[in-house]
Amino acid sequence: MNSWLTIPIDSDFSIHNLPFGIFSIGKKAPRVGVRIGDFVIDLEQLRKFGLLAVPRNVCNQASLNAFINLGKKKTSAIRLQLQDWLVQEKSPLKKYFNQAFYPIESVKMHLPVKVGDYTDFYSSLEHATNVGKLFRPDNPLVANWKHVPIAYHGRASSIVVSGTPIIRPKGQIKPADSPTPIFSPTKEMDFEVEIGAIIGKNSVLGESISTAEAESYLFGLVLFNDWSARDIQRWEYQPLGPFLGKNFASSISAWVVMMEALEHFRTETPPQDPQPLPYLAFEGKKNFDIELSVRLNIDATHSHTISQTNFRYMYWNLAQQIAHHTVNGCNLKIGDILASGTISGPVAGSNGCLLELSMGGKQPIDAGNGLQRTFLEDNDTLIIEGYCEKEGIRVGFGEVSGKIVASH
Amino acid sequence: MNSWLTIPIDSDFSIHNLPFGIFSIGKKAPRVGVRIGDFVIDLEQLRKFGLLAVPRNVCNQASLNAFINLGKKKTSAIRLQLQDWLVQEKSPLKKYFNQAFYPIESVKMHLPVKVGDYTDFYSSLEHATNVGKLFRPDNPLVANWKHVPIAYHGRASSIVVSGTPIIRPKGQIKPADSPTPIFSPTKEMDFEVEIGAIIGKNSVLGESISTAEAESYLFGLVLFNDWSARDIQRWEYQPLGPFLGKNFASSISAWVVMMEALEHFRTETPPQDPQPLPYLAFEGKKNFDIELSVRLNIDATHSHTISQTNFRYMYWNLAQQIAHHTVNGCNLKIGDILASGTISGPVAGSNGCLLELSMGGKQPIDAGNGLQRTFLEDNDTLIIEGYCEKEGIRVGFGEVSGKIVASH
Repeated sequence: MNSWLTIPIDSDFSIHNLPFGIFSIGKKAPRVGVRIGDFVIDLEQLRKFGLLAVPRNVCNQASLNAFINLGKKKTSAIRLQLQDWLVQEKSPLKKYFNQAFYPIESVKMHLPVKVGDYTDFYSSLEHATNVGKLFRPDNPLVANWKHVPIAYHGRASSIVVSGTPIIRPKGQIKPADSPTPIFSPTKEMDFEVEIGAIIGKNSVLGESISTAEAESYLFGLVLFNDWSARDIQRWEYQPLGPFLGKNFASSISAWVVMMEALEHFRTETPPQDPQPLPYLAFEGKKNFDIELSVRLNIDATHSHTISQTNFRYMYWNLAQQIAHHTVNGCNLKIGDILASGTISGPVAGSNGCLLELSMGGKQPIDAGNGLQRTFLEDNDTLIIEGYCEKEGIRVGFGEVSGKIVASH
Repeated sequence: MNSWLTIPIDSDFSIHNLPFGIFSIGKKAPRVGVRIGDFVIDLEQLRKFGLLAVPRNVCNQASLNAFINLGKKKTSAIRLQLQDWLVQEKSPLKKYFNQAFYPIESVKMHLPVKVGDYTDFYSSLEHATNVGKLFRPDNPLVANWKHVPIAYHGRASSIVVSGTPIIRPKGQIKPADSPTPIFSPTKEMDFEVEIGAIIGKNSVLGESISTAEAESYLFGLVLFNDWSARDIQRWEYQPLGPFLGKNFASSISAWVVMMEALEHFRTETPPQDPQPLPYLAFEGKKNFDIELSVRLNIDATHSHTISQTNFRYMYWNLAQQIAHHTVNGCNLKIGDILASGTISGPVAGSNGCLLELSMGGKQPIDAGNGLQRTFLEDNDTLIIEGYCEKEGIRVGFGEVSGKIVASH
């Protein structure tokens, strides 16, 4: 498939991708866009020109929720129609190119969805084991872990789009040598590499979703950075889980890659032993081969890759996560995000957070140019990138980035 | 203060209360109402008749969020105006009585707010100690408890209005005598008596709210039942906290009692020792004297009070909870709910859940008429009622009820 539009050969946003997002240009209100190469297509303009048969108040919204609510049949058809028009030489898009295609540098990206509930899973065996060793040396992998796709609810209000500065949070920290806590900006500012799944269909309170139906509830995926203040988290998390150590901010990438664009990159879930309960059984390839890398920019001239991992390593897959989340009747809504939990892999250099990479802050890592880091310092910028590539087809997520700024 | 309207002398909805809620009548769309005695006042009708100067699309909404967004100055003024009109003999309301006042039996109540994020605190010392003994006999009150107002994020999508049936959730349970979990409807269905605080003002991401400012972010309070499946919770909650054991449903009362209506019932917070960090210091009376009782209706003819407690017992007050929640920059939004955590007291019979009342299911409690319960059974109805009363003034919450129905 080749487009009449020039698309850089290594672009994440190839003709095979066509992700959706919310953008604004100049002083115009935010609206729905589709990314292709280095351009954004304005769907509200296409609607006005009569090219898109969607109701008003769908493409002129500040979130994708109304668009997603059109249903997968409709949104998939729109994506395929755009793909077709981007390939056809006699494309109706050409006539409106100047009015509906904007260079990516000229637009501002916004949070793509209005998030209802945000759930964070904990589905990487390697991450759970590594962190468990640091937090609970006597009990690293909790007995339930291989039976239960462990998750907790996170904060929706503080989810921000890539590029938003992250203010170093303050809070209670208990130094090892003190009997009581102190109040301080976190000294252990960390990131977590995750994939976030955007829910695409409402489920009914009281009803469960099977693993076979589960993927029909997914609209698409984004990159997700679950910023974490480890010292705050360590002191607060017993007995009810993380709270202020996490809820000051989470960042997501601006473009939502539809599940259809990821079909080509399905892969097997790693073996599960012991076999989980029947409601978690599944058939087929339910993991996705998404290459993930983490770069740390200490200043404008130093960029250093500090981790490379892959979404394929996850022990629990998306279908299992959804089946588990709803097995008790809990309902999912359009715009909810299910994050994967930190993605660490079994190979060297594949740990998805600094807590693991620096062994709990004990072994500084190379940050490039002779510099080192245990945790993030003020003015550091952390960038997660992700893409799939197979048989010459590339579908990527762009990036999710955030610069740490000093506490107020 | 006396109204020209007949209000039953023991009504929770006295002239001193005037709570807000969302109701519908017949096939009309849900809208904003105020409760007085056994009537609901239709604010959308009052607006149409020119008695309320509020924008369109505020009182004709299916949630109070747009109404709350008018700001406390405006919403308080509306409440005081209504109070005045309900007292004045020459009231403009009398002319529209037939068109704007409905008997409570004739309306259907809806969820009063669209909940953005729901946070559940754990602020009762007695509850934390009692439950800690059952879940962690070696470590009942975790070391952080008297320093940190412990909380976790709960599920917003499954919060339902009083009267909604509660389907018994299914999930993983690990029997003590089995090496592996089984799949089953919960055998330990429980309630938790809580008060929910409805956030009335958006805060800014990255900024903290002091204890002195905190109450200005509160719109009002509701009764809150944090339904819990103890066996599911026990197996899943380590290391990241409760998830499926809680997120199948939480119920709230239909009428939001404004903070102004509760001023008269302020009381001291119990002594805090050790003294918490300075950001948690506060001045003045920050607890509220709200009598709470729990009734179990096993069938239409048996109703038995199984607990009586009081919101005044809470160790951490609302101002401290808000200051803690935002100390790291986490933002609050209109419609968010901060629940108190189970309210247990220091006196006999004041435990706020069956887990405590039945000592973890080991000592059945009297359910009236010679019947007993450890946990809730199918077709049991659980009703929490709450009210303040002092110097002849009564301000109440009505009730939050839910009937347990069998798993699908």
